Amino acid sequence: MPHSANPRIAIVGSGLCGALLAVYVGRAGYPVDLYERRPDPRSGKVVGGRSINLALSTRGLTALERVGLADEIMKIAVPMRGRMIHPQHGDLAYQPYDKDPSKAINSVSRAALNLLLIEAAAKLPNVRMHFDWRCVDADLDAPAVMLEHAETGESRRAEADIIIGADGAFSAIRGRMQKVDRFDYSQEYLAHGYKELHIPPKDGGGFRMEPNALHIWPRRSFMMIALPNPEGSFTCTCFWPWTGPNGFDRLRTSAEVEAYFREIFPDAVPLMPTLVEDYQRNPTSSLLTVRCGPWHYRDKVLILGDAAHAIVPFYGQGMNCAFEDCNVFGQLLDEARARAPRSAGDSGAIDWEALFARFYEARKRNADTVADLALHNFIEMRDHSGSRLFQLHKAWERTLHRWLPNWYTPLYTLVSFSNTPYADAVARAKEQTRIVNRVLAWAAAAVVGGLGVAAWLLMR
Amino acid sequence: MPHSANPRIAIVGSGLCGALLAVYVGRAGYPVDLYERRPDPRSGKVVGGRSINLALSTRGLTALERVGLADEIMKIAVPMRGRMIHPQHGDLAYQPYDKDPSKAINSVSRAALNLLLIEAAAKLPNVRMHFDWRCVDADLDAPAVMLEHAETGESRRAEADIIIGADGAFSAIRGRMQKVDRFDYSQEYLAHGYKELHIPPKDGGGFRMEPNALHIWPRRSFMMIALPNPEGSFTCTCFWPWTGPNGFDRLRTSAEVEAYFREIFPDAVPLMPTLVEDYQRNPTSSLLTVRCGPWHYRDKVLILGDAAHAIVPFYGQGMNCAFEDCNVFGQLLDEARARAPRSAGDSGAIDWEALFARFYEARKRNADTVADLALHNFIEMRDHSGSRLFQLHKAWERTLHRWLPNWYTPLYTLVSFSNTPYADAVARAKEQTRIVNRVLAWAAAAVVGGLGVAAWLLMR
Repeated sequence: MPHSANPRIAIVGSGLCGALLAVYVGRAGYPVDLYERRPDPRSGKVVGGRSINLALSTRGLTALERVGLADEIMKIAVPMRGRMIHPQHGDLAYQPYDKDPSKAINSVSRAALNLLLIEAAAKLPNVRMHFDWRCVDADLDAPAVMLEHAETGESRRAEADIIIGADGAFSAIRGRMQKVDRFDYSQEYLAHGYKELHIPPKDGGGFRMEPNALHIWPRRSFMMIALPNPEGSFTCTCFWPWTGPNGFDRLRTSAEVEAYFREIFPDAVPLMPTLVEDYQRNPTSSLLTVRCGPWHYRDKVLILGDAAHAIVPFYGQGMNCAFEDCNVFGQLLDEARARAPRSAGDSGAIDWEALFARFYEARKRNADTVADLALHNFIEMRDHSGSRLFQLHKAWERTLHRWLPNWYTPLYTLVSFSNTPYADAVARAKEQTRIVNRVLAWAAAAVVGGLGVAAWLLMR
Repeated sequence: MPHSANPRIAIVGSGLCGALLAVYVGRAGYPVDLYERRPDPRSGKVVGGRSINLALSTRGLTALERVGLADEIMKIAVPMRGRMIHPQHGDLAYQPYDKDPSKAINSVSRAALNLLLIEAAAKLPNVRMHFDWRCVDADLDAPAVMLEHAETGESRRAEADIIIGADGAFSAIRGRMQKVDRFDYSQEYLAHGYKELHIPPKDGGGFRMEPNALHIWPRRSFMMIALPNPEGSFTCTCFWPWTGPNGFDRLRTSAEVEAYFREIFPDAVPLMPTLVEDYQRNPTSSLLTVRCGPWHYRDKVLILGDAAHAIVPFYGQGMNCAFEDCNVFGQLLDEARARAPRSAGDSGAIDWEALFARFYEARKRNADTVADLALHNFIEMRDHSGSRLFQLHKAWERTLHRWLPNWYTPLYTLVSFSNTPYADAVARAKEQTRIVNRVLAWAAAAVVGGLGVAAWLLMR
């Protein structure tokens, strides 16, 4: 039976993706129930959870702009205009992200951004929020979600016409979809984990390093990075193997931690007064890539964001891609509504299964592409970003971009500073490289030929 | 706490892999509980389940021999010494599997083989069988399995020292392991499904086609195959796409089914008196590949067989690979027991976690290799086996194998008629091909050079 013109929509998860999606779907006028396992962040309790700051770039900003939230969020962002490379020995090296120094990715606090999105969703009269309810399972055919109260342990079954799972990399909704015949799925962990550390503001305030940069300590096969926070601190993240000579499991005692950092990250140690305590206290977490499909079950259930395509953090695109999901879903929903048959003042029922299928078709290849980009960029950041050849290559890309601004755009710029679909960005970058290499080969041949002619003239 | 010298072992699943493993582990003297969701096949009830016959080849036979079961099973097998190709138009073509016509893969009934293995396990005094108990979940840390009775619905928790999941492609034990941090997992479905059909014996008995062959109707991008059964019938299997011009979903009415078979499989139709009824009644099932790792959780839980590495059926290696798992596990168990520290007549406690890790290391690369081989062989069977070029290539391989029996062995022979680990077999086949191609290139160059010299001599 097709849905009515005004189906009830349950969104599972009020993280970054779920909260923004609630704004999109709520603004379209549908009655929305938003279920979240954590407590209401507006109550003042800490949201907690994953890494503390994130890089917001063009795709994410575009999705926020469409619902009028970009300006407010940019007020709490710290722009990062390039990479600051910290070698083990020697001087810092700065690499701008773009030929245009105003182009920046923006360090934002996950908690502050999430709070803002939840407030925006809660303002809509047709969006109801249900905090402290953890989704433990789903009945795809009803459809319904099985909920468990975080404090009382009470169990509840909540029905809806449509369920949208925005419940993250370990999605319970996806867990149930995995048991549907012909659902493809993979989860692949990195051999590296991550641990967060802290650089506080200067005594009396102010940043202890350049604030408008993403700091990288590339050490081949592993690295540390740091992103600025508005109040003057930095959040550092170590991306190290779990085991082996530079593995997390090698450092046991406080003395070992301190000695290791003094040797490998010598310029960072004086900036980290709580290094050893932070290292010992903070958890080491794993990094995974999730790919699956299809993302929907009939016209009843859809997954998006990390639930559909969790990626590793090295291109800074996880949140941006999830926000782009919301944007694309919103556009397709608007189109479907515009096409829907209308009757007597009714806004018209739409074909939700076709909408979900179109969304999957539009996003799947892009989600797969950005997953690959993110895995590849880990190698670029940790192995290559410290090398002189890499810095020359980046300078050459910026030069081409300056000379031929309408034709040549580096891949990093396409990914971070444009809304070109990820798959198209990669295809364009490959084509550019192919043509540049061909021109260079012709030029080299012309030079060699010219030298030959000159030599012949001279020797004649 | 390490296990005692005599840990209780629970095996989940008494399918082909679980039942044979129970024989191996039971013969080693451990107390074994075998849990199976289906009823006891010795009670006369039908075992049911998956495809009705299977190709038993050297690896499977070796594993059965090691526990003295091969001879009994070979009594109910029909040897298949080659492929019989049924083109859409034109004559049958026979392709022997090996230069030695006595080399054969053996068609056996899944139900009869399973019954025989269950009887062998039940004969061991330390093996207890529990039928009608479905494993729905596991507690990996206890460890324990959660069981549900198929008829009464009763729930039960069964503890053990070690749990071994041999519960197939949709393993509940693996489902629980998938939630352990850093467990890699993928399930990938084919765009093709399968449906079984039936060719009965001749009126008055006897086979309606050549019994000692695996029959293939290759039709590019899809196919039908047939395997002989001892009583004179054949089990046919259609491997077709789910959708599209040759898809299962295209044939709706009985008239459509009959017309399609008359056009595409004209020589089979007269042999299949119940074609239309079978087609309409039998289910269409999906085909998937499962890869994951690690296969164990501490010293508590292990998965093997399809639960660890389900593959598509096109190389006839799914059961053989699972039996080889049992064989390798048995060998490693024997080695660990021989090395175990002994005290006062005690057989000694072994390091089960190290044993599980060694098993994973020994088998993982081979399981990955056979998964790739099986996927690739689908293309070979359906797209190439009907072509003249393919038949020439196979004849050339057999010729090389005859000329250079100590050096050149075709990949099919290494996989089906040897116990060479799958990964080593593929590496060896690649090396052989590389050298043969180089020799051929030299030979071609020598011929061209010789012709050049001859021409020069003639023209002088």
